[in-house]
Amino acid sequence: MSVRSGPQRTADAIAKLRATDGDVWVSTAPTAGPAHLVPLSYAWNGERLILAAPASSLTVRNIQATGRARLGFGPTRDVVIMDAEVGGIAGVDDPTMAEVGRAFADQADWDPRGSPEYVFVLLRPRHIQAWRDASELSGRLLMHDGRWLFEV
Amino acid sequence: MSVRSGPQRTADAIAKLRATDGDVWVSTAPTAGPAHLVPLSYAWNGERLILAAPASSLTVRNIQATGRARLGFGPTRDVVIMDAEVGGIAGVDDPTMAEVGRAFADQADWDPRGSPEYVFVLLRPRHIQAWRDASELSGRLLMHDGRWLFEV
Repeated sequence: MSVRSGPQRTADAIAKLRATDGDVWVSTAPTAGPAHLVPLSYAWNGERLILAAPASSLTVRNIQATGRARLGFGPTRDVVIMDAEVGGIAGVDDPTMAEVGRAFADQADWDPRGSPEYVFVLLRPRHIQAWRDASELSGRLLMHDGRWLFEV
Repeated sequence: MSVRSGPQRTADAIAKLRATDGDVWVSTAPTAGPAHLVPLSYAWNGERLILAAPASSLTVRNIQATGRARLGFGPTRDVVIMDAEVGGIAGVDDPTMAEVGRAFADQADWDPRGSPEYVFVLLRPRHIQAWRDASELSGRLLMHDGRWLFEV
C-alpha cells in the first residue's frame, strides 16, 4: 500500500468524519479509574464531533468529569484517532442544540431528539492522527493543538 | 437482522478472538489521567488475549500501573467488548514467553520476537459482551467474572 501524503490523509480523515455508515470507538476515563470504551454513532459539523448518549452513561459522566475523550474511527487498518476536549453538553431537546440535532439526525442513522434521557456531547478536536499500516506511522499527525497541519 | 442466541454470540465472539485479519482497539488509563486508545494486533490462546507492544508505550505503562484494559473488537456494528486484567508482561524473547510467542506469530500478521524493546502482554478476560445493533443490547453479556455463561 502506498504511503499517503498529508493532504490526502487529511481529506480521507474528513471523509471518515462525515461518513454515515459507522460508529466511533469512544474511550474515556474518570478522574481516577479505569478506561471505558463503547462504540457510538456520531456526526461532524465541520468543527465539532457530535455524540449522543444517555446523560447517565459512563461515557457522558467521564466526559463531564474530565472534559476529555479519545476517539478511534476504524477499521483498524485505516484509522483516524482524535484527542478531543468537551465543547458543550446539553439535553437533545435543549433549544441551544437545535442545529446540532439537525446535523446529527442528518448524518447518523438515528435521531435521539424526543428522548429526554439523551444528551448531545460536542467535542472539540485537539489532535488528529491517521494511518493505515506501519509504513504510515511517520507523518500521522494531521491536527496539532486544534489546527489542521495541511490544506486540502 | 435477527437477534442471535447466547451460544451463537459466544461462538461468534470466539471466532473474532481467533481472527487473523484485524486489530483490536485497546483502551487503557493511568491510575489518574486520560484514557488512551490504540489499535494493536492480537492473538487468543483459548484463555488469554495476547498483545505485543513496546515496553515504553503508554498502553503498556498504563496496564502495568493499573492491571486493567478494555478492548473493543470491531467492526462497530458487530462488536465484542472485553474487560480484562493483566496476567503477565515479559519481554518477547523471555523464555517464559516461548509458547505465547508462537501463538502470537501464528495468528497475528507479524512476529515481534527478536525486537528487544517489545513485550508480550497477557490479558485475562473478566467480562465479555457482544452485540450488533440495538436489538441485541439485551443479552449481550457472554462472560461474567471470568466464566463463560453459555456452552458452545
